[in-house]
Amino acid sequence: MRLLLRSLCVLKRFSHRLPVDAGRRGLCGAAMRLVQFHRHGDPGSVRVGVEQGEGLGVVDLKAFDPSMPSTMRELLELGDKGMECAQRALSSGQCVVQRSDIKLLSPVLAPEKVVCVGMNYRDHCLEQNAPIPKEPIIFSKFPSAITGPYDDIILPAESQEVDWEVELAFVIGRRGKHIKEEEALSYVAGFTVANDVSARDWQMKRNGKQWLLGKTFDTFCPLGPALVTTDAVKDPHNLGIRCLVNGETVQNSNTDQMIFKTEKLIAWVSKFVTLTPGDVFLTGTPPGVGVFKKPPVFLKKGDVVECQIDQLGSILNKVV
Amino acid sequence: MRLLLRSLCVLKRFSHRLPVDAGRRGLCGAAMRLVQFHRHGDPGSVRVGVEQGEGLGVVDLKAFDPSMPSTMRELLELGDKGMECAQRALSSGQCVVQRSDIKLLSPVLAPEKVVCVGMNYRDHCLEQNAPIPKEPIIFSKFPSAITGPYDDIILPAESQEVDWEVELAFVIGRRGKHIKEEEALSYVAGFTVANDVSARDWQMKRNGKQWLLGKTFDTFCPLGPALVTTDAVKDPHNLGIRCLVNGETVQNSNTDQMIFKTEKLIAWVSKFVTLTPGDVFLTGTPPGVGVFKKPPVFLKKGDVVECQIDQLGSILNKVV
Repeated sequence: MRLLLRSLCVLKRFSHRLPVDAGRRGLCGAAMRLVQFHRHGDPGSVRVGVEQGEGLGVVDLKAFDPSMPSTMRELLELGDKGMECAQRALSSGQCVVQRSDIKLLSPVLAPEKVVCVGMNYRDHCLEQNAPIPKEPIIFSKFPSAITGPYDDIILPAESQEVDWEVELAFVIGRRGKHIKEEEALSYVAGFTVANDVSARDWQMKRNGKQWLLGKTFDTFCPLGPALVTTDAVKDPHNLGIRCLVNGETVQNSNTDQMIFKTEKLIAWVSKFVTLTPGDVFLTGTPPGVGVFKKPPVFLKKGDVVECQIDQLGSILNKVV
Repeated sequence: MRLLLRSLCVLKRFSHRLPVDAGRRGLCGAAMRLVQFHRHGDPGSVRVGVEQGEGLGVVDLKAFDPSMPSTMRELLELGDKGMECAQRALSSGQCVVQRSDIKLLSPVLAPEKVVCVGMNYRDHCLEQNAPIPKEPIIFSKFPSAITGPYDDIILPAESQEVDWEVELAFVIGRRGKHIKEEEALSYVAGFTVANDVSARDWQMKRNGKQWLLGKTFDTFCPLGPALVTTDAVKDPHNLGIRCLVNGETVQNSNTDQMIFKTEKLIAWVSKFVTLTPGDVFLTGTPPGVGVFKKPPVFLKKGDVVECQIDQLGSILNKVV
């Protein structure tokens, strides 16, 4: 039956011209919510999909066009060709799987890089009486830290001070080095929501004060729910951004507080390294993290952390 | 002609029992020098090979058995099956390509992680009057920093203080978390030579003192020439280790000076993250780096840096 449906999907696939995009900013001028998922009971089979709307049915891209890849990273490597096919798949209204039949995964898995930015919100600097940085502060997580938008955050026995950090994330769509700020947005595939989960004891007091270990425990980078393409976001630097722990709002700010915005971060980091499709950037957190509360508050088993960004959606992770 | 040779190779392939390995330590008890290469004029076609000896001809694994993968990371993911096939390929004496026909690449490309260790040689700590660390200090490079054993190190315009660091590297062969020290060596595929090239200005004075940026410029991780399997190394923690700049010895020590050895590093890092086949560890550098010379010395265009480790080989990179 599934095979028959897939064949029908391919037969019904059609090609149409994309609207001319005067204000082209992103990869191909298409406004979409791209996801990765697998069907329940088939966890080995990752697929790329396009949401029909936030939280609605998902068009299975490979069912629509079997020549399309199964992972977001491969789709991004196809560039405009991949994005245009995803747009046709969405327009077709075919090959739709219901949300109840699938598990949503992180929109990107196994990127070459997870680039993180520290101290990048004005109000977060004020919160800790820290000076506004003159240059971005760049650190990283290993890709093994990435987990799905509704997956559990595993509290490690090694830390007593695990904290939340809601962050605007973006994903690179084109390979580049020494990228100019004016052209930087054309290297962005889209935006998504991240939780930069942080073990403060390891970040601030151990490991020679190198932040990596405290930031990169397995499951310390929930990501999702969708990669919202650049053209679907009105202004990524004017979005309400919130974190709720057990339903209580603990962070509540706006991405207009970001000190170094998307374009600047891409120009900066690409002076050092070649950026590659699928690379994920976490752009820093607003105030309200647990470590600066008086007294400090940290995550414990059973807590539920929800990170929300306007226009992008919400990720919700239980601490276990 | 090449096709014919390949067919002959497949026909001549044979299977034989491996010798019983009483002192089994590594993945499958086979002593080999594994490499990655491409033929001159065919840079898109990466292959895994087995050296017939240091600097000698290379058995093309995929020519010997077309069911074998083309990259080291995929080969390692096959576990013992892959290593046993590589051993059969080596024993066959077939499918040999001459060194003059190939370019040697880094033995691993695109690992999930490049895990680095700071301050891990007793004599290097003494050199800078720093205390001996009580715990390993872990930082990272992005995989995009990896370059081949004889490739150029590109001096970035952004740094005036680029330095050398010869290091023993090892590569993970099996997936694992919370690995016990006693079992750690069975997770190691093998050892190789690395140069942890470091921009001291960025490492020590900029980026909020997070080392990442100064360590991760493109080409700042020359690696190779071969992945020498664990069973081919007599004692990885008793190897002469040297760095020469323009023929002059600048670092000259022994891996017996390592504070945290391979087993300890694997046990430590796997408390934080799941290790994956292909993950590369750089285990720290002995004394003699340029920044601590009086006056400090840094790399300049035209310099040639050679990193040597007994039993493993030598990598030689020109600074451009």
